[in-house]
Parts: sequence; structure tokens; C-alpha cells
Amino acid sequence: MLVGDDPASEVYVRHKVKDGSEAGLFVDLVRRPATSTLDETLAVVRALNTSPTHDGIIVQSPLPAAMGPTAEMTVFETIDPAKDVDGFSPVNVGRLVQNRAVLRSCTPAGVIELLERAGVPIAGQHAVVIGRSDIVGKPMALMLLHRNATVTICHSRTANLAAVAATADLLVVAIGRAAFVTRAHVKPGATVIDVGMNRVADRAAVESWFPDGSPKRAELERKGSILIGDVHPEVAEVAGALSPVPGGVGPLTRAMLMQNTVTAAESRLEGR
Amino acid sequence: MLVGDDPASEVYVRHKVKDGSEAGLFVDLVRRPATSTLDETLAVVRALNTSPTHDGIIVQSPLPAAMGPTAEMTVFETIDPAKDVDGFSPVNVGRLVQNRAVLRSCTPAGVIELLERAGVPIAGQHAVVIGRSDIVGKPMALMLLHRNATVTICHSRTANLAAVAATADLLVVAIGRAAFVTRAHVKPGATVIDVGMNRVADRAAVESWFPDGSPKRAELERKGSILIGDVHPEVAEVAGALSPVPGGVGPLTRAMLMQNTVTAAESRLEGR
Repeated sequence: MLVGDDPASEVYVRHKVKDGSEAGLFVDLVRRPATSTLDETLAVVRALNTSPTHDGIIVQSPLPAAMGPTAEMTVFETIDPAKDVDGFSPVNVGRLVQNRAVLRSCTPAGVIELLERAGVPIAGQHAVVIGRSDIVGKPMALMLLHRNATVTICHSRTANLAAVAATADLLVVAIGRAAFVTRAHVKPGATVIDVGMNRVADRAAVESWFPDGSPKRAELERKGSILIGDVHPEVAEVAGALSPVPGGVGPLTRAMLMQNTVTAAESRLEGR
Repeated sequence: MLVGDDPASEVYVRHKVKDGSEAGLFVDLVRRPATSTLDETLAVVRALNTSPTHDGIIVQSPLPAAMGPTAEMTVFETIDPAKDVDGFSPVNVGRLVQNRAVLRSCTPAGVIELLERAGVPIAGQHAVVIGRSDIVGKPMALMLLHRNATVTICHSRTANLAAVAATADLLVVAIGRAAFVTRAHVKPGATVIDVGMNRVADRAAVESWFPDGSPKRAELERKGSILIGDVHPEVAEVAGALSPVPGGVGPLTRAMLMQNTVTAAESRLEGR
């Protein structure tokens, strides 16, 4: 469900429709105008909750500001937890804490998939998560904890953040600040997962990160802006492994959404 | 609700009945025999969910083993979240992650109350939580995080646990092992909160912890066992502050249960 016409949301939703179609899922894009009320939005959600032909429901964030600051949370409380393929419903978040979630937040689930398929050990490692959002930081910390990592959560109020980050064997960065994590934050050989995705048009910033002649400089000339994660490119010189942006966590997040949808459909078919 | 006749549960339930009565609450102790089935237990919970005279519901753990390993979780999923004064329902746990819980797990809420009333700073501090249970460790870490601590969660699989713990400004210990945390785990001046409560009858152990002539030695002689937390008595010599066992976190836990019950009643009266 897409309410309004936020340009970034249009891109995300287009990706989801494409991913679903390619995976062989039926995707029903429900659009409502930006002038819709919260009550109208909730009525659509309730209809989808009881629809026999819909296994998963996503309401794209952000909702129009006019709906008020708690509108999204009200929507997440209304979506049937069995169809909550984003994993944002409080019931599913609570089950995640209790290590028995069936539908889990897609980005941290994608990071786990990435680590496991790359053969990066988690158990017994010191994992540091930078960022404490409901959607990434907190569920990421819980998933790493359940895989027996010792987990530290850092954030904007953390004292000596670079020094804390530099104790990590496994560093997950989701703070939403371009090139924030530098060499000083990374223990040599550590695995670094960059969850950030920032569009930067500031020429001076881009030139400070990338040398003349690099592909990112060319991207800036061509498009007027570049995509960069939360990790400074110099980290590649010290990290044992580093996930790229774009092309790292993003595609895994999209894949996990498809996986959640298939899981929800299977659960419903099996009468669970 | 008390199912069966576990002796420890009898003590806990007696305390709760007493606390409630002293606080001016009506306490209705529903007893069922150890031979009760899970379905019978759930039927009682559903009747209490709809009862107009009950504002809070506690089902004392553990349930009889014959009900199976997932019985408690099924009960927690069945209790109306608005009456879940233990804060164990997945909805309330999820809302805790989202920092908007009304009914929160009592032990970690009691620790926060203790810290705040004692004037111990939390924001910007490095808090280390030893233990990752659903009831204490995980909600404790989240509550400290929401108060702007940098939080590390340690557990039985943590490498170099003493060294990690010794980086804490604020150390919360809930690992369930008598006198586990020693001087080596504590930075001088740190605040140490001992959530453990262990009954120990082993004379050699007690004699190794407490000198001849100490009150705990006398307690051992008198009762045949002593109560001790997860923190070794020697920690008192290095900690800046240390919560006692018994008489520290325990009474706060009991108080938070009463507070949750009053909150649930007020919410219901106000039609929230």
C-alpha cells in the first residue's frame, strides 16, 4: 500500500513490485492519495487482513505527515501479525526478542544471511552495532545476541564511539551518516557491514572521499550526486571484509521481504 | 493464578497477595491443581481477560512440566496485553523495543527505578548487562539503551567476560550463578546491580565467601543455607555502589508489579 506520492517511496515500491513479480508472487499495489486520512488507511489494512488472496501486507513509510506522528505505529498495530511481512508489528518484534519470530525485520535478517553465507563467524565474537533504530539497530543486536555474539549497541550519545567500535570483531553500521565510520573505528581484520545508503551531491565531500579518476567521481559528474554508505572508503584498507554500497545489504533486504512473504503464505496454507 | 503446588511458587504468590493487599488492591488467587491441562489454564485466562473486575493477570511460572515446553509462552500470548502486568506478552515486549510500553517487565523496571532514585547517571555511561533472559537481561538492555547508555550484553558464551564487564560504568548482573562476579569483573568505582538470588547450602562455598563470625556464617548455622546474589561479597570493596541481596532489586520488582497493576486499572478506567 502506497499512500501519497513521495518520490523515494515510489522507487522502493517499484522495486518491491518488481521483486515480487520476478519471484512469481502476485503483487497488488494499492494506491491512495496523499489526502487520505488515517482512518481510511486503517480500513484498507483491515480489508487486507481478512482478504483470502493476500498473504502479506506492506504499508510503505513514510505516511503523509498530516496523519500525525503516531500514524505509522497505529498501522503497524493494525496489520495482522501473520501478514506483517515487514516484521514491524509489536507482536512480531516481541517474538523476535523471545527468539521465536517467524516474520523478522528484513534488513537485519538480510545482514545475518550475508554473514552466514559468507562464512563469517558470529558466536563468541564481539559485535558492535552503531545505530539503535526500531527497524535495524535494535533487531540487529537481538539477532546477533541469539547467535551467541557478545553485543554492544552504540549511538549518537555514545562516548568515545570510535574506540568502542574499534573493539568489534564484527561491526554493523546503521547510523544514516555518509562516510561516518573511518579507519579509526575499525580494528584491523574486522568484518564491517555497511547498512547506510546516503545520496550526496556535495562536491567537496565526494572529492574528500574519492580520488580524482575514481568511478565515484565520474558518477558525480554524470548524475550530480553519488550513493555512499555510512562507511568511509578508506575502511576497505583495514577491514577483513566490507559489504559494498550499493549492492551489499540492500539486495538482501529485498530478498528477505520475499522470503517473509512466502513464509507467511506457507504458514497460512498450513493453517498455522 | 497458581497451577500446581511448587514450593517456591507458593512463596512468590504469597508475597504478591500480601503486597497487593497492603497496597489496597483486591487480589483474587485462582488455584488449579497440578493435573490441570493447558486448555483448562487458557480457559481461566480467557475468562479473566473479559472479567470486568480484574485489571491485571499473573500466571505464576513455572507451569507443570506435563503441559509441555511451550505452555508458558502460549499463556503469555493469550493474556490480554492490557492486563499483562508481568509485561511478558509479546505485544508488550515489542512495544518495549519501540520505547512505548505501558506495562514493562518488573525486574528491569525496578532496576531503573533504583538507579534513578539513587541518582546514578545512565545517559552516556557504558552499561554492561550480564545475562540475556527474556525477563531480565534483554529488557534491561533495552531500557538502559532508551536512557542513552551505551549497552553491552554478555552471557555464558562471551569471551573474556571479566575483561568486558570491567569496562562498565554500570554493571547489571543477572546470570543466576552464586557469587559469580568477582573483583576482576568490576572497574573501581562502578555501580553494580545484583539481580541474582541464589540459595546455597554448600558449607565450603559459604566459608570461602564470608569470614568466620560474619552474619552469613551465622545464617548458615541457623538455617542450613544462605541467600546470596550473583555478585561476590569482595566486590563491595571496589564498587562505587552495590545493591544488596536480599533487599535490593527484589523489593523493587515487587513494587513495579503493583505499579503495573495500578497503571492497567487506570488505563482501563480511562478507556485507553
